[in-house]
Amino acid sequence: MRSNTELFAYNQGEIMPLEAAFLHVSDLAIQRGYGIFDFCKVQEGIPLFLDDYLDRFFGSATMMELPAPLTEEELRSTITQLILKNNLGLSGIKMILTGGYSANGYDLAEPNLVLIQQPLSLPPQEQIDRGIKIITHEYVREIPAAKTINYTMGIRLIKRVKDQRADDVLYYKNGVVTEFPRCNFFIVRQDDTVVTPSENVLRGITRKNVLELAGRKYKTEEGAITLDDIYQAKEAFLTSTTKRVLPIVQVDDVVIGTGKPGEVTLDLLQDLVDLEQKYRLS
Amino acid sequence: MRSNTELFAYNQGEIMPLEAAFLHVSDLAIQRGYGIFDFCKVQEGIPLFLDDYLDRFFGSATMMELPAPLTEEELRSTITQLILKNNLGLSGIKMILTGGYSANGYDLAEPNLVLIQQPLSLPPQEQIDRGIKIITHEYVREIPAAKTINYTMGIRLIKRVKDQRADDVLYYKNGVVTEFPRCNFFIVRQDDTVVTPSENVLRGITRKNVLELAGRKYKTEEGAITLDDIYQAKEAFLTSTTKRVLPIVQVDDVVIGTGKPGEVTLDLLQDLVDLEQKYRLS
Repeated sequence: MRSNTELFAYNQGEIMPLEAAFLHVSDLAIQRGYGIFDFCKVQEGIPLFLDDYLDRFFGSATMMELPAPLTEEELRSTITQLILKNNLGLSGIKMILTGGYSANGYDLAEPNLVLIQQPLSLPPQEQIDRGIKIITHEYVREIPAAKTINYTMGIRLIKRVKDQRADDVLYYKNGVVTEFPRCNFFIVRQDDTVVTPSENVLRGITRKNVLELAGRKYKTEEGAITLDDIYQAKEAFLTSTTKRVLPIVQVDDVVIGTGKPGEVTLDLLQDLVDLEQKYRLS
Repeated sequence: MRSNTELFAYNQGEIMPLEAAFLHVSDLAIQRGYGIFDFCKVQEGIPLFLDDYLDRFFGSATMMELPAPLTEEELRSTITQLILKNNLGLSGIKMILTGGYSANGYDLAEPNLVLIQQPLSLPPQEQIDRGIKIITHEYVREIPAAKTINYTMGIRLIKRVKDQRADDVLYYKNGVVTEFPRCNFFIVRQDDTVVTPSENVLRGITRKNVLELAGRKYKTEEGAITLDDIYQAKEAFLTSTTKRVLPIVQVDDVVIGTGKPGEVTLDLLQDLVDLEQKYRLS
């Protein structure tokens, strides 16, 4: 892996060394935590499912009233330039759009766009074979449909996750689960129906792909999942850009299904890996 | 008023021109909106009630697991240096403490401390004479006791406040009001009892001072205030470092009391102005 000193970023109109990418302290991200972002995976020089990520990026920007300084076409071309310049293997591109340099530290200004590309690791095979343990926490993100930069709760929970020797934390509200700080949640019912929450969640791109793939072989549902539904489930897993499909074998103190990664879960992971490959070759 | 180009700031250990104060894009404030801040008023070179602001600053830092890079004494001395260097009249000092330069964009790093001093305006006399109109919105901040940088909701509501020709927006939850994005709320009951919400609010320093001042002349209460309590109130006002005590004469479509700034409100404003003067002379 190369060090950050050799990486390039895009910052306010220019491609520059990542180590030279700074924002002034008057930026509303620093002053008021105001901004949105998105994150896509790059494999063999190809940003996977880029259309979907750009759609969501511009959607979040609109919801937060942040006009992007680049058109979708310009952003696409900038991403291509950055990928060529960095020439990384498996990596992620983060696009951050902030509230801009605010004169009074409160009113929105002209948004600042920053693109960062950095190497990425996928979950180790050992973790997929074993499955992960998760804990739960009552919380709903403020604007669940938008990918805002507000991860205060997620970061505050890192320690609790570690202390309980868990791998992630699933949010719920009034007994209905929603999402992880950075991943979506799925269960597989005893009848092999694949279910994922529909309310108060970020519409993950991997969530969307997995729902489509699951629909080819299984019944699928988007709807409310209670904690009790999870305890009764045959399988559970999470999805995200970096984690793909990761089996969940324990939720708080409750072992899910057989306590081992489920067949449907592993099948969907393989289908997703195939879909990524197909996308790269297309 | 001098331009920003002549102002000095403190950034990561150094006093430097404000225009040169930048944070790298890997900072968790930019990556994840993670940070806390505080803000005190400076008059005639004196940071008013600084002990209280520093207490709250370090309190917020502890709640958010952000160890400050300066001790309270060092911070106090840095504030003094900045005030001497900037030599401003009425101004505000903002202390921002961020999650730091995070290697993976998620885990907390060594916090970055930034101090900015900028000129400040108090509310014009005309606004005090007339009183302000406010609207309401259902919302509770995520960690109400901590002064985090997350103002996503407040900033998103700016437009609605303007569209409704209001001056600010009061948060409530389940019919119980809490606070404004940047101010505390008070009512004066028909029997002249001065009441302010106690739950889910930031403990404002001006709120504390006004409660103390009010206690010398009136009955005071910290407790739940419903929207209906407001409609029945004799007077209403908000408090903040920059706004001091500002009369509220309309809440949504409901005129409060006589529709003019109340006697108790204006009395408490005068007491606060006197207290500030006394602090400066002490």
